[in-house]
Amino acid sequence: MRYVWLDCDPGHDDATAILLALHIPNITLLGVSTVHGNTSADDTMKNAARCLHAFAAPNSIKVYPGATQPLLRPARFDPEIHGVGGLGGVEGLPSVELEEVRARLPSDPATARAVEGMATAIRGVWKDGTGSKVVLVSSGPMTNIALFSCVHPELLEAVEEIVFMGGGVGLGNRSSAAEFNILCDPEAAQIVLNIPLKKTMIPLNVTHTAIVTRKWHSKVLRPGSAVTDPAQPLPAPQSALRRMLSTLLSFFADAYKAVFGFVDGPPIHDALTIAYVARSELFAGRRLHVDVELTGAHTVGETVVDLWDYLKADDTWGRTGKNCIVTESLNVDGFFELFLDAIARCDKVSPLNQ
Amino acid sequence: MRYVWLDCDPGHDDATAILLALHIPNITLLGVSTVHGNTSADDTMKNAARCLHAFAAPNSIKVYPGATQPLLRPARFDPEIHGVGGLGGVEGLPSVELEEVRARLPSDPATARAVEGMATAIRGVWKDGTGSKVVLVSSGPMTNIALFSCVHPELLEAVEEIVFMGGGVGLGNRSSAAEFNILCDPEAAQIVLNIPLKKTMIPLNVTHTAIVTRKWHSKVLRPGSAVTDPAQPLPAPQSALRRMLSTLLSFFADAYKAVFGFVDGPPIHDALTIAYVARSELFAGRRLHVDVELTGAHTVGETVVDLWDYLKADDTWGRTGKNCIVTESLNVDGFFELFLDAIARCDKVSPLNQ
Amino acid sequence: MRYVWLDCDPGHDDATAILLALHIPNITLLGVSTVHGNTSADDTMKNAARCLHAFAAPNSIKVYPGATQPLLRPARFDPEIHGVGGLGGVEGLPSVELEEVRARLPSDPATARAVEGMATAIRGVWKDGTGSKVVLVSSGPMTNIALFSCVHPELLEAVEEIVFMGGGVGLGNRSSAAEFNILCDPEAAQIVLNIPLKKTMIPLNVTHTAIVTRKWHSKVLRPGSAVTDPAQPLPAPQSALRRMLSTLLSFFADAYKAVFGFVDGPPIHDALTIAYVARSELFAGRRLHVDVELTGAHTVGETVVDLWDYLKADDTWGRTGKNCIVTESLNVDGFFELFLDAIARCDKVSPLNQ
Amino acid sequence: MRYVWLDCDPGHDDATAILLALHIPNITLLGVSTVHGNTSADDTMKNAARCLHAFAAPNSIKVYPGATQPLLRPARFDPEIHGVGGLGGVEGLPSVELEEVRARLPSDPATARAVEGMATAIRGVWKDGTGSKVVLVSSGPMTNIALFSCVHPELLEAVEEIVFMGGGVGLGNRSSAAEFNILCDPEAAQIVLNIPLKKTMIPLNVTHTAIVTRKWHSKVLRPGSAVTDPAQPLPAPQSALRRMLSTLLSFFADAYKAVFGFVDGPPIHDALTIAYVARSELFAGRRLHVDVELTGAHTVGETVVDLWDYLKADDTWGRTGKNCIVTESLNVDGFFELFLDAIARCDKVSPLNQ
Repeated sequence: MRYVWLDCDPGHDDATAILLALHIPNITLLGVSTVHGNTSADDTMKNAARCLHAFAAPNSIKVYPGATQPLLRPARFDPEIHGVGGLGGVEGLPSVELEEVRARLPSDPATARAVEGMATAIRGVWKDGTGSKVVLVSSGPMTNIALFSCVHPELLEAVEEIVFMGGGVGLGNRSSAAEFNILCDPEAAQIVLNIPLKKTMIPLNVTHTAIVTRKWHSKVLRPGSAVTDPAQPLPAPQSALRRMLSTLLSFFADAYKAVFGFVDGPPIHDALTIAYVARSELFAGRRLHVDVELTGAHTVGETVVDLWDYLKADDTWGRTGKNCIVTESLNVDGFFELFLDAIARCDKVSPLNQ
Repeated sequence: MRYVWLDCDPGHDDATAILLALHIPNITLLGVSTVHGNTSADDTMKNAARCLHAFAAPNSIKVYPGATQPLLRPARFDPEIHGVGGLGGVEGLPSVELEEVRARLPSDPATARAVEGMATAIRGVWKDGTGSKVVLVSSGPMTNIALFSCVHPELLEAVEEIVFMGGGVGLGNRSSAAEFNILCDPEAAQIVLNIPLKKTMIPLNVTHTAIVTRKWHSKVLRPGSAVTDPAQPLPAPQSALRRMLSTLLSFFADAYKAVFGFVDGPPIHDALTIAYVARSELFAGRRLHVDVELTGAHTVGETVVDLWDYLKADDTWGRTGKNCIVTESLNVDGFFELFLDAIARCDKVSPLNQ
Repeated sequence: MRYVWLDCDPGHDDATAILLALHIPNITLLGVSTVHGNTSADDTMKNAARCLHAFAAPNSIKVYPGATQPLLRPARFDPEIHGVGGLGGVEGLPSVELEEVRARLPSDPATARAVEGMATAIRGVWKDGTGSKVVLVSSGPMTNIALFSCVHPELLEAVEEIVFMGGGVGLGNRSSAAEFNILCDPEAAQIVLNIPLKKTMIPLNVTHTAIVTRKWHSKVLRPGSAVTDPAQPLPAPQSALRRMLSTLLSFFADAYKAVFGFVDGPPIHDALTIAYVARSELFAGRRLHVDVELTGAHTVGETVVDLWDYLKADDTWGRTGKNCIVTESLNVDGFFELFLDAIARCDKVSPLNQ
Repeated sequence: MRYVWLDCDPGHDDATAILLALHIPNITLLGVSTVHGNTSADDTMKNAARCLHAFAAPNSIKVYPGATQPLLRPARFDPEIHGVGGLGGVEGLPSVELEEVRARLPSDPATARAVEGMATAIRGVWKDGTGSKVVLVSSGPMTNIALFSCVHPELLEAVEEIVFMGGGVGLGNRSSAAEFNILCDPEAAQIVLNIPLKKTMIPLNVTHTAIVTRKWHSKVLRPGSAVTDPAQPLPAPQSALRRMLSTLLSFFADAYKAVFGFVDGPPIHDALTIAYVARSELFAGRRLHVDVELTGAHTVGETVVDLWDYLKADDTWGRTGKNCIVTESLNVDGFFELFLDAIARCDKVSPLNQ
C-alpha cells in the first residue's frame, strides 16, 4: 500500500489523476491540496472538491487550499487549454454549491491550508517512524510542495518520494523551452529538485505518448467498445460518470487540437503521476541531474537535464547529485488499461450514477 | 504600544537589537525566530536564547527556530565578521547549557518552528481584528518572513509593517554590489518586497552612520563617561552586563577594522530596526520602489532602488508600487541615547548582574 | 553559380566542407577565413591552408585569419573531439612547412585579416550592384561573421544569405542545452541572427542524420564498394587523398563513439553547409524565429526556436522576424552521393595523388 | 605630445571634448569617429563635422562614421537630454550643408568607416614601432572601440591607453543602476574592459563634480567676469564662438535641471576625458577591477567595481586583472581653467568669429 498526498490544480487531466488516486487498489489517498496553475487557486480548490465528490472519495478526504500565486512571479493561468474555471466544457460534474461538495472544503480556508494539511497527514501516517512513509504527488506548479519542504524540513524523513508531472527534455509547451507547470513557478520547482529525497519527473516527452485516441475514448464511454474510425460515432455512455469523463476528454481534445495541433487526441499528462506511483514498471527512465533555468531571457522554466553528465553529479538526491528519475517512456496500453480499470471501479460507487 | 516579532540571526548587532526590543518602553516583544545567516541556524537559535536570558526577557518569550538555508541558494555564514559560533569574542554571556537558557528553546525543535510561531503570536494579538496589529522586524536574511507570507497570506492583514535591516543604495559589503542579509537569500528578500504591506528598509547607507565610536563605547561601559582620546583607556565596566556588551562591541570593532577598514568603530546595523519601530522620527527617508537583483552575473543581491522613478511605480506597497520606505539618514545622537537608555533599563534586571 | 565565402575552424568536418566548396560544380569559392573554435585560431588558419593545398584549390584562394577569441567569453577548444591541433589522427595531409601551403597564408597576418578579406572579396564580386551577391557560410563560431556585419553594414546588401552549421532544436552537445559552435560565441551568433538577411541554420537535429556509416566510409575509400558488415574489412584506399580522408573519418568516428556513444559512425556536420548552398532541395525546413540564450545559468548558447509562434514574429529576417530557415531533415543518400562525387572530382587533381 | 583618436556621439558635452582635443597644446588629435548614442549615428557624424569646422580643426582631421547600433541591443537615443538632432538648442553652429563642413565627411561613407579610420591613423603614427603610441578616447557608447579591438588585435600594441567617460560607482543616470554610455552598449563596454591595455574610467561620480555653475558660464561668455548671483545677468558674449558655447551650456543646463534636478548647472561629462589625457594630475583615482553587468534583470549596464577586492584580481589590465583606473575625484578649478584656456585659444582661430 502506498500513502499518497496529491497537490494539484484541476484542470482536466488533474481530475483524472484524482480519479486514479481514489480507485487504484494499492494507493491510499490521504488528502488533496490545491494550487494556482491551470486556473485560479479559488477555482482549483473548488474543482478538487467537486471531483472528490463525483469520484466517491471517502468523507475523510478533504481539500486544503494552498498558494494563490508563485513564490516570486505573477500568477499565470491557462484558460486557452482549460476553459472557464479550469474545467471548461465538463458536463455533469456537481456544483460547488452542493452540500456534499462544500463539505470537502475547510469551513475557514485560513485554518486548514495546504502546508499544514500535508504536515498533519504525514505526521499521522509516519507516527514518529513507527508508521509508513508518504509519497507526495504534484500535478501542478510546485509552490505548495516547495513551501512544505522549507517550513517542515523535519518531516522530509517521512516522505518516501516526490513524483511530479512537469518539464520536458528539449521540449516545451507554454514557451519555446518550458512546460507550463514548471514555467508557472520555476523557483518552486528548483527548490523541490534540491530536496535530498528521491524525485521522479514525468516530462512532456512521456505524457505526449499518453494520447487518448478515439479507441481509448470509446472504451471510456463503454467498456469493450473500440471505435477507431473517425467516421464511426463514439458509443453512447454507459453511465453518468462516463458521460462526464467523455465531455472532459472531448473538451481537452479540442483544446489540444486547436492550440498545439494534436490530431489523434489529447495527452492526459497528470494521470501518469498516480500511474507511476501505483505501477512504476509501466515506465522506463534514467536517474539524472535536473535543474530549472531561472535566469534565461528565453529559457526561464526550462528543465535542463544533464544528459552528457557534464556536471559529474554525485549519488545523492540533493543539490549536487543525480537528483531525479527522468522517465523516458511509457507502456501506453498498460497505462490505459489501468486507467480504464480505475474508471470501472469508480463507476460502481460514483454518486453521479445514483 | 507596538507589538513586535523579531526574526534574527545573532550575530553581534542582532544581540543589541534583542536588547532594544526588550527594554524600550513602547515596544512589546512577542517572540523571536531565528534563521541561518551570520552563522548556522543552530547557532543563531542558541544565541538568541542566550541573549533573551541575559537581557532578562519575560519567561513567556521563546525562540522559534526557522530556516536552516536560503530558499534556493546554498547557505553562507560570516565567521570573518562574527567569529566562531556567531558571537565570537563575547565574554560573560551564559552558555546554552544553562537551564534557564534551554528553557527558551522548544523541547522539540520540530514542533515550534518559526513560521508557525509567528502565525500563532500574530493571531493571539490580532484576535480576528479586535486586537492589535504586529510589526515584523527582520535583522537577518528574510527566509522566514518570506515563508510566513507565502504560507499565511490570510494573516497579512494583521501585520502593520515589516522593518528590515538590509541592502544598500549603490553600496554593498559582501559583494561589490550586495549587502550580506540580502545576498544570503535574495529571493526571500524579493518575496518580502512584493508583499502588499508597508515595508521599511534600513540600508548600509544609514547603518554606516551608526558607528559605536570610542565615546559611545565609553558610555556603554559607564554612563556619564565620554572617552574620545584613543590614548586614554576606556572606563572600567559598571556591571557584568556592560562588561559583556563591551566585549561584544570590541570584537565587532576589530572585525570591521580588519575587514572593511572602519577605524572609528563598528556600525551597529541591526539595532536600528528596533529603533525605527520605537522612534521612526529619528530617521528620514523616502518611499520608493525597490527590487532585488536575482539574475545578475555580478549584482545578485543588489537592492535596486528606482531613484529616478523610471518605473512610474504606483501607490500600492506591492509588486508594482513604491513598495518601501528607504531610510536615508539617522539622528545618530538620538539613536545612541535610546540605545544607552535601553542598556540602563536592562542593567537593572539582567541576571548577569546578580 | 553561387559565390561562397567560407568561414571555418578546421576541424575534421570543416575539412570536408572545404573539399565540397572546391569541388561542387555550381559553387565558386572566393576565400576562406578562419576562427577560434575546434582548436586555436593559429591552428585553424594553418589547417585551412593545408586543406586548400591538399584539395587543389586555385592559387588565388587564400586563408584570412580572423578572431582568436569570442567577442566576450574566454576561448574554448575541443581537443576531445578534434585531437591535437584540430586535425588529430589525419594522416597524409601536407605540413604547414610546405612552401605551397605557406603560400596560402598571408605573409603578414596583420595585413589580410578575415573581416577585410571578406569585405574585399564581396566588393569584388558585387561590383557596386552590377555583379553577383555572395553567400556567407559559417562552419565554426560566428565571431568573424558578426564582426563583418558590424563593421561593414554597407556591404550587407551584397550578401545573398548566411548559412551556418550550429545549434539544435531541443538538443545540445557541449552543454546540456547548447551546441559547440554557438556555445563558443553565443553573442556572435545572436548578432548574426539579428542581421536583416536570410539565414539558414543546419542544427544538430539534421547533422546527426548525416552519419558516415561503414557503407559510406567504404565508398570514400573505393567507389563502388559497399562494406556494411563490421566483420568485413574496409577496402584498401584507391588514392592517397582517399586514404587521408579515411584516416580523418576514422579518427572522428572514434571520438564520437567515445564521447557521445555514436556507434554507427560520426556525423559530418559542417559538410552540410556547402551541400545546402549547392543543393538546398536536399533539405526540408521551416522559417522560424530563433534566438540564442545569452543569460541563462544552465542554458547559455542554446538556440531557442519559437516553435509555437509565441513571439508572433513578423516577415522580416531581422531582430523581430522569422529570422531563420531552420532545416529539419536531410535526404541522406542524396547528400552522400554529392559528397562522394566531390571526392571523385578532387581525386583527379589533388596534389596528394601525384 | 599625446596623439589622440576621439570616438564620440555629439552631444553637447562631446562637443566640448572636441574643442579641448583641438586646443590643448600637448594633444594632437588624429581623427574623430562617431557612433550611435546621444542621437542617431547619422546625426553624430554630422555634428562632429560641424564641430570640427567651428573649432577650426586642421583640414586633415576628418570624421569617420561608425556603428549605427549597439552590438546586440536595439539603439537608444537621448533626446530628453540632447534635444532634436543631438545638439538641440545650440545656436550659431554651421550647418552640415556648408561646404567646409561637408569636406570633413567621407565622400562615400562606406569607404572610410570608423574601425578602418582608427587602424590607418594608428599605423601612421606607430610606424611599426618606430613612432608613437596613440590614446583612444571614448565619450560615447564603446561599440567602435570594441569592434576595433576585435578586428585589429595586432594594433593593440600601438595603443597607449583607453580613456572613457562612462559608468558610475554605485550611481546610474539612465536606469537605477546604469550610466547612459554603458547602458547603450554594455557588451561593447565589457569587451573594452577585457582588452589587456591600461584603461581609465571617468564615472558619473567624478563628472557630477564638473558642474558648469553660473560663475564658469559667465567666464565662458567673457573672460574675467565672474557672475554668481542668479539675479545678476550673465555678461554679453565676447565672440560668436562664445555665444554658441553659451547656448550649448544653457540648453544642457535646462535639460539637467528638468530631468535630474541639477540646480547649479550641468555636468560637462565628456570634456573630462580629454582633460585627463592632457593633465591626469587633475584627477585622483585607484586601479580596480571593473565589470559590466550584462545579465541582470534590473542592473544591465551597471559598472560593477570590485571595491572590496573580492575577486583577488591580478596585476594585468586584462580579463582577470585590475583592469581599470577608476577616477574618484577632480580638481574642479584646475579643470575649468584648462577648459577656459582652450576656449580662449579656439576663440582666436574659430571661423565663427570671422
